[in-house]
Amino acid sequence: MPSTNSFPDHIQFLKGEIETALKKIPLNNSPAYLYDPLKYILKGEGKRLRPILVHLAGKAFQADPQMLMKAAMAVELLHNFTLVHDDMMDGDAMRHGQETVHNKWDDATAILSGDGLFALSQLMLTNMPSAVHLRFNEVAVTICEGQGMDKEFENDASISMGAYLVMIGKKTGSLLGLCAEMGALIGNADQKTAHHLFEFGLNLGLAFQVQDDYLEIFGDASSMGKSLGSDIHAGKQTALTILAREKNPDQWNDFFRNNDSIGSYQKYFEQDGIKAEAESVTKHYIEKAQEGLSVIEKEKRDHLGQFANMILNRKN
Amino acid sequence: MPSTNSFPDHIQFLKGEIETALKKIPLNNSPAYLYDPLKYILKGEGKRLRPILVHLAGKAFQADPQMLMKAAMAVELLHNFTLVHDDMMDGDAMRHGQETVHNKWDDATAILSGDGLFALSQLMLTNMPSAVHLRFNEVAVTICEGQGMDKEFENDASISMGAYLVMIGKKTGSLLGLCAEMGALIGNADQKTAHHLFEFGLNLGLAFQVQDDYLEIFGDASSMGKSLGSDIHAGKQTALTILAREKNPDQWNDFFRNNDSIGSYQKYFEQDGIKAEAESVTKHYIEKAQEGLSVIEKEKRDHLGQFANMILNRKN
Repeated sequence: MPSTNSFPDHIQFLKGEIETALKKIPLNNSPAYLYDPLKYILKGEGKRLRPILVHLAGKAFQADPQMLMKAAMAVELLHNFTLVHDDMMDGDAMRHGQETVHNKWDDATAILSGDGLFALSQLMLTNMPSAVHLRFNEVAVTICEGQGMDKEFENDASISMGAYLVMIGKKTGSLLGLCAEMGALIGNADQKTAHHLFEFGLNLGLAFQVQDDYLEIFGDASSMGKSLGSDIHAGKQTALTILAREKNPDQWNDFFRNNDSIGSYQKYFEQDGIKAEAESVTKHYIEKAQEGLSVIEKEKRDHLGQFANMILNRKN
Repeated sequence: MPSTNSFPDHIQFLKGEIETALKKIPLNNSPAYLYDPLKYILKGEGKRLRPILVHLAGKAFQADPQMLMKAAMAVELLHNFTLVHDDMMDGDAMRHGQETVHNKWDDATAILSGDGLFALSQLMLTNMPSAVHLRFNEVAVTICEGQGMDKEFENDASISMGAYLVMIGKKTGSLLGLCAEMGALIGNADQKTAHHLFEFGLNLGLAFQVQDDYLEIFGDASSMGKSLGSDIHAGKQTALTILAREKNPDQWNDFFRNNDSIGSYQKYFEQDGIKAEAESVTKHYIEKAQEGLSVIEKEKRDHLGQFANMILNRKN
């Protein structure tokens, strides 16, 4: 792939290549019951951060670009599979700027199209090294574990920040870890180096999810594609509510019982120092991620470092 | 594995080995939200026909028994994944002699445990030849297509027997085809031979499903693990209802509107010759399957031939 002038340009270039490749995934027309929702899902406006990370990590190891694109497709399909099923489990109405599948069609359609995405993701790994298959599916199991923990945590007002980080590490971190690790494995990195790349992505994923929880309160509603504060109103744990509860349990419980507007949350989290604390947790994991990159030569880790900073500074 | 005296003994021996191997699949305890249902699903009383077929086909090609057992686990996990999700889509209450997952727990639990089974099935294929991965997941997509067609066919009173056979070929036949093909591929059979084995299993699967529809009306309710005639009452197409409609549309539609007891179905299908016709369709596909076995030397195909006859003669 041609080199471009700036990092943001390079990211836009990769995103374009990824969108093109997604459109080229061969999908039958019939049965429409399966393929109409699949086409609909893939035209959602995803940020494509995961496939971008596969490419950035792979490039640091001079991995074959065509194999990287296949791996990039595999993780994006896997990611969308989990979104379709999770949205159904959580009853979410919007995703990537459009109606969720179970909402636009029905539950059975959402189950089947998610299953189809998962099966298609595996086909993208044909002829990949055995370690890539293994790690891909180990992480798929880990993501299921994370979702299981997330369901267990619903409405459980005793979850600690530590337990929450374990859960988001499995549910979100492991997939970003996989993206970075696959890039390394396809570039024939040794196992130890590949594991460092996994850790890089894992820490990035922790930062990403805490940031996600933060942006749900302090972000720009229209660009998030779902309504602000919806998870909290539904009684779902987020990094901010847990930090607030751990800091002043009685004060938080009293507030939570009596307030439900986004404005009141913003005010509470600012005044109680939770906003600053969440920012510092995000920064902590971004720095941890950056440190893990030291296994890669300085000039080759530049883009991965900038990608981490991009996560840190994102507004949606 | 030790040779045994009779074919039924050998099948029982294989079933025992498969049950033991299923129990040895490493499953964590936590999160219980994910792993409790997984353990529950795997202790259901399945016939284990698919993993048995993997072993029988593999033995005909002197395939490594340990690799065969991994492939056998993979197909059994894949099969159970599809059952958990299909039962939820169809609202079925019982499976393998116990409550279905969505019924015992809830929909979210059924979605996630099905996803977990699919991911675990992939892990069983670690270090398998690339062709095994490819075929496994091509068939997984095909099964999704079959389920999509099945959903499209619900309450569509114009489905032809030909279209129905395409659907069950994808939904049921392709998995039995995969079982036979994987045995051949693990035994290093050439691609053409492996494809013949797929065709053998596909035809076996067509016979199996038509037989299943037949046993739903003429079988022993208690051993089927779900209530007789339930699919038909729900307006679901089966081989027998389609044959009956195609033979005498007006007579069938008039009967269907005014009758819903299992006894009345039995009487109609017997008197109109549909019972005999379904028996002959099953026999036709068993014979077609048997013919396809000619690519294997006579003394090596004996067990596969007996397996086909076992399907033909099953009572539940």
